[in-house]
Amino acid sequence: MNAITDVPGIRVGHAHRVGDGWLTGTTVVLPPSTGAVAGVDVRGGGPGTRETDLLDPRNLVERVHAIVLGGGSALGLAAVDGVAARLLAAGVGYPVGAAPGEVVPIVPAAICFDLGRGGEFGHYPDAALGAQAYDAATDVTGQGNVGAGTGARSGGLKGGVGTASTTLPGGHTVGALVVVNSVGSCVDPATGELYAARFCRPGDLPGLRRPDPDDLAAAVAAAASQPAERRSALATTIGVIATDLTLTKAQCAKVSGIGHDGLARAIRPVHTMFDGDTLFTMATGAGPAPDPMVFHGLLEEAADCVTRAVARAMLAAQSTSTDWGEMRSYSAAFPSALV
Amino acid sequence: MNAITDVPGIRVGHAHRVGDGWLTGTTVVLPPSTGAVAGVDVRGGGPGTRETDLLDPRNLVERVHAIVLGGGSALGLAAVDGVAARLLAAGVGYPVGAAPGEVVPIVPAAICFDLGRGGEFGHYPDAALGAQAYDAATDVTGQGNVGAGTGARSGGLKGGVGTASTTLPGGHTVGALVVVNSVGSCVDPATGELYAARFCRPGDLPGLRRPDPDDLAAAVAAAASQPAERRSALATTIGVIATDLTLTKAQCAKVSGIGHDGLARAIRPVHTMFDGDTLFTMATGAGPAPDPMVFHGLLEEAADCVTRAVARAMLAAQSTSTDWGEMRSYSAAFPSALV
Repeated sequence: MNAITDVPGIRVGHAHRVGDGWLTGTTVVLPPSTGAVAGVDVRGGGPGTRETDLLDPRNLVERVHAIVLGGGSALGLAAVDGVAARLLAAGVGYPVGAAPGEVVPIVPAAICFDLGRGGEFGHYPDAALGAQAYDAATDVTGQGNVGAGTGARSGGLKGGVGTASTTLPGGHTVGALVVVNSVGSCVDPATGELYAARFCRPGDLPGLRRPDPDDLAAAVAAAASQPAERRSALATTIGVIATDLTLTKAQCAKVSGIGHDGLARAIRPVHTMFDGDTLFTMATGAGPAPDPMVFHGLLEEAADCVTRAVARAMLAAQSTSTDWGEMRSYSAAFPSALV
Repeated sequence: MNAITDVPGIRVGHAHRVGDGWLTGTTVVLPPSTGAVAGVDVRGGGPGTRETDLLDPRNLVERVHAIVLGGGSALGLAAVDGVAARLLAAGVGYPVGAAPGEVVPIVPAAICFDLGRGGEFGHYPDAALGAQAYDAATDVTGQGNVGAGTGARSGGLKGGVGTASTTLPGGHTVGALVVVNSVGSCVDPATGELYAARFCRPGDLPGLRRPDPDDLAAAVAAAASQPAERRSALATTIGVIATDLTLTKAQCAKVSGIGHDGLARAIRPVHTMFDGDTLFTMATGAGPAPDPMVFHGLLEEAADCVTRAVARAMLAAQSTSTDWGEMRSYSAAFPSALV
């Protein structure tokens, strides 16, 4: 399916609220109930995160039971508590007592800034929306204006959720899911192409071609005419990389780090002071621990999965219009780019 | 008052739920509404934290609008959303838009493990309890079984909230507030004295003296008889150091780091794999930026404030008894230590 859900055992759930001043959502990535070994790399200057310290390889807890990506900036961290409550009720978490259900769900999270884009500033995801995303989790995922990508905006265009995966030489899988909400642009101003397009594989971006010069000129003019206050003070690309290999926490953190290279190939600039760019990695451990050359191959593919997921996010995005304003998708801004 | 609230502009609020299966709470430390420059150092192997990445000195956001310390382990992070909502409603936060109220409240937090100590495992602080702590904030603070210290336990004895402060030579102030919930002990098994006692100042521990050998023998026997499952899987000492000096984020992080030395003098062992030991520092900036020798003096005093706060926490603690079991305070276990 060219998705993070191609990794056996990984499920994704999205929930969103649109209309009546709302344009936001939450996305949850769930490993099997025994959890997944995880790591993180936070490279943006304006991050909004939860439970990242415990992922330090020196620390005790190895496995996470969910990772939440969401809108609402720091206020949207409220959604995580809804996911944690669902996991507690299901008896899923780090065991801390003898009785069943005596567990602490381990739920790291990162958020992105979309406050106000629905028309009302104070409309951000709450615990109920997080629980809704958890309830919706399944072994396939959509892209575009879903979950945490609902209100996303990237370099003046509509951003959103994207995903991509690869089968590794040994038969195991790596996949990535990103929420593209960057202050930087995914579009090469010289050509109107997505920076990431050249790194995509057949089937990633069906029907995509270089846009006509007229589209490019129109897009440049539209960007120049955007009022100053439309430029977000805060932005972010957040995501999760997953694999069924067996990795240590340190290896997961390394995969996250190299995933940021994948962002750099797709978005320019990225990791600015105004971005909260954060990537998590989870390894389910269903497959073996990789030797150094297999790990090297995983790193290469993980970075490319992230790049491809960003491109697919931009292509899957759909234009929106609310009292706050409009966000045109890449497809709408560059109609000649699609056959 | 020998409290963190001696720092001008710092307020503290506590909320707790006791009875009917509850023994937990939340503590919020509030700077003036313009926020305080802050830093953090996470040194325990089992931390539970929120919004610590943004405090990295390389990152954009300088000022926090509250710091929340709470029980409930990671589930208790739900309380933070109640504090964030109160701040948003008050228009307090990092400005992200032109209109008043378009702010993102910056609220780092750390939690400690007290799940189940009231009798019911699933009874942890929620957003409402966090809001209640915010509403209760004032320029004095209690100690002992209040707020985040309500269900705290340290080395088999009742733990809790403690606070201490010092006036610096230039007339400014440093203070600390800690929540002692450590897996290690605050008590020297050779003498029954608090490790921290020798570092305390006149007035810190009124009436305290070395316990009689009979008390020590009884306490040792009681500790040996505790059932294995009573030993917490997870533990933590968390706290906030505050000053009215002007510090950078990096200096705040440094103060936090040296505060951990203060914990090391009071608790043994500390910073274990099972502790989530985390210290925040906030600097209101009402006073000047210190030259290197003044900063050196601040570091010395900050470490000692943390040590003294731990001692005062242990002395202020009161015994509890719930369906889960009992926690005896230091005063109850060593009655001969108090004149």
